[in-house]
Amino acid sequence: MPRADGLDVLVSEVGPRDGLQSVASLMPLEHKMAWIDAEALAGVREIEVGSFVPAHILPSMADTGDLVRHAKAIPGLTVAALVPNLKGAQAAVEAGAHKITLPVSVSETHSLRNVRRTHAQMIEEAQAIAALLATLPPGRRPSFEGGLSTAFGCTLEGLVADATLTRLAEALMQAGCDEVGLSDTSGYASPSEVKRLVRLVRGVVGEEALSGLHLHNTRGLGLANALAGLEVGITTLDASLGGLGGCPFAPGASGNIVTEDLVFMLQAMGLKTGIDLERLVEVRRRLPGWLPGEASYGFLADAGPPLGFSGEAAVAAR
Amino acid sequence: MPRADGLDVLVSEVGPRDGLQSVASLMPLEHKMAWIDAEALAGVREIEVGSFVPAHILPSMADTGDLVRHAKAIPGLTVAALVPNLKGAQAAVEAGAHKITLPVSVSETHSLRNVRRTHAQMIEEAQAIAALLATLPPGRRPSFEGGLSTAFGCTLEGLVADATLTRLAEALMQAGCDEVGLSDTSGYASPSEVKRLVRLVRGVVGEEALSGLHLHNTRGLGLANALAGLEVGITTLDASLGGLGGCPFAPGASGNIVTEDLVFMLQAMGLKTGIDLERLVEVRRRLPGWLPGEASYGFLADAGPPLGFSGEAAVAAR
Repeated sequence: MPRADGLDVLVSEVGPRDGLQSVASLMPLEHKMAWIDAEALAGVREIEVGSFVPAHILPSMADTGDLVRHAKAIPGLTVAALVPNLKGAQAAVEAGAHKITLPVSVSETHSLRNVRRTHAQMIEEAQAIAALLATLPPGRRPSFEGGLSTAFGCTLEGLVADATLTRLAEALMQAGCDEVGLSDTSGYASPSEVKRLVRLVRGVVGEEALSGLHLHNTRGLGLANALAGLEVGITTLDASLGGLGGCPFAPGASGNIVTEDLVFMLQAMGLKTGIDLERLVEVRRRLPGWLPGEASYGFLADAGPPLGFSGEAAVAAR
Repeated sequence: MPRADGLDVLVSEVGPRDGLQSVASLMPLEHKMAWIDAEALAGVREIEVGSFVPAHILPSMADTGDLVRHAKAIPGLTVAALVPNLKGAQAAVEAGAHKITLPVSVSETHSLRNVRRTHAQMIEEAQAIAALLATLPPGRRPSFEGGLSTAFGCTLEGLVADATLTRLAEALMQAGCDEVGLSDTSGYASPSEVKRLVRLVRGVVGEEALSGLHLHNTRGLGLANALAGLEVGITTLDASLGGLGGCPFAPGASGNIVTEDLVFMLQAMGLKTGIDLERLVEVRRRLPGWLPGEASYGFLADAGPPLGFSGEAAVAAR
């Protein structure tokens, strides 16, 4: 389905959330704001600015409310936030987030270990959030995504059953989500599985209810998996600037696919992202200053674009 | 076209050639032999063991003749070698290589800079090599590939013209090559360009005359480009164990795609490579001992395969 925003692919920056929650250092609020401002200026249209979790659990996310309020002032930017439960959703609504995502782990073992909730309890949470959103006037209602994490398998269970994935996707939509997304939390996906599971889930929830993938690069297949997603009509891809969140094989590291490498791939394929790659790389160069001691990853920023590469017009000009 | 060897994809290890010619250290002959032996034992069916260039130009390739003679004793292994000219081809034939590749740069600027030869001179070289091969009895004649390097662009010229690429591909086949291959020497390829140029060249030389890609990971798109190749019917992919040849963005580094990451992707997609991934990773772990001081790259060896991953049977079992 063509996107309403005129882009071929929406690159959703999740570094301030998934990146920062995976590193030991705390980034001061003013640096987070500078990062978000700079990426929005480079043309990034959606940024997941944080997670509404209790500060004692994730101190790095304590200022998510302030960030949402700050980012909302940026014209044309969709301000997204993760919410682990109803309480988080209430905080997100109060701050005025445009989009909230409730992560639900397809691996129930992982769900129990991570948030001490069964699938049934998570679906109840989704219903409660939907009920909250239903009380809001249309202009204040954020869009509501069910994020199917560990959709491609998990380090505790291995592969997850197709039936569990489709049942959860359906249950989340019935609970009141506007859409679901597939997350390769453990870096287990392959291109063929991306295609297969996107088609499978769409067969249950409909094409319009699954447009996004959240991929990790843990085993090096991140961009190949992104390509597979594009080929089955995925139009939203999450990524983290400079691969922030760490080396994909370090313990606890996230290994999101790298925003600037993804944007380069998309632009080299002639796909419109709305992003100025040169400016995006400049923002990436500022990251170490905002978060000293944390490494950056990816290839494009170091190698530079090919000679004669003209960004969004790269292929169109041939 | 289905492969005659029963594999879905032939992974051709080029580390002993492209990897070693790109690093400063010299690997002793006995270590090269151990590497080749171990990879063949892990199931790798084709290895480019070296390049028949003058030793004063590439000291690391001085023992290529010895390596070919050694590797030929390994049952079931196709022993490949690069030859820059007729003289190299003569040496390769004397040593008994099963396959020789003459690299011809689609960027004439690159060709002049690298080997001081025009396109016309390189085609003459291909003709002279073909004439030499025609004098050999069938059992001793190596297969002869024209390697179209910088096929996706070059750091001196930027993009190369489609017409130059197709003209060279046609001329190489007319000169007597058995097949041509496309090389992304500079890491300029994108998935869409891989598909477009494979189709374009096949339109000129025929499907059976283009089955292989030589991809670099300079800008992180290596495996995405490999996937694009698979999707247009490519069945031979070059790769370097541990990404030997260096960090893709370091000056002069090669940045071949990483053998073990590629094999993981292929197997995760249910494609038969004939390779035992676990044993391949064990060989990769021995690399630093054979070549102290040189770094290894890639993700799979550090992250390990997903829980429950069953190699070649991974998808078939679902």
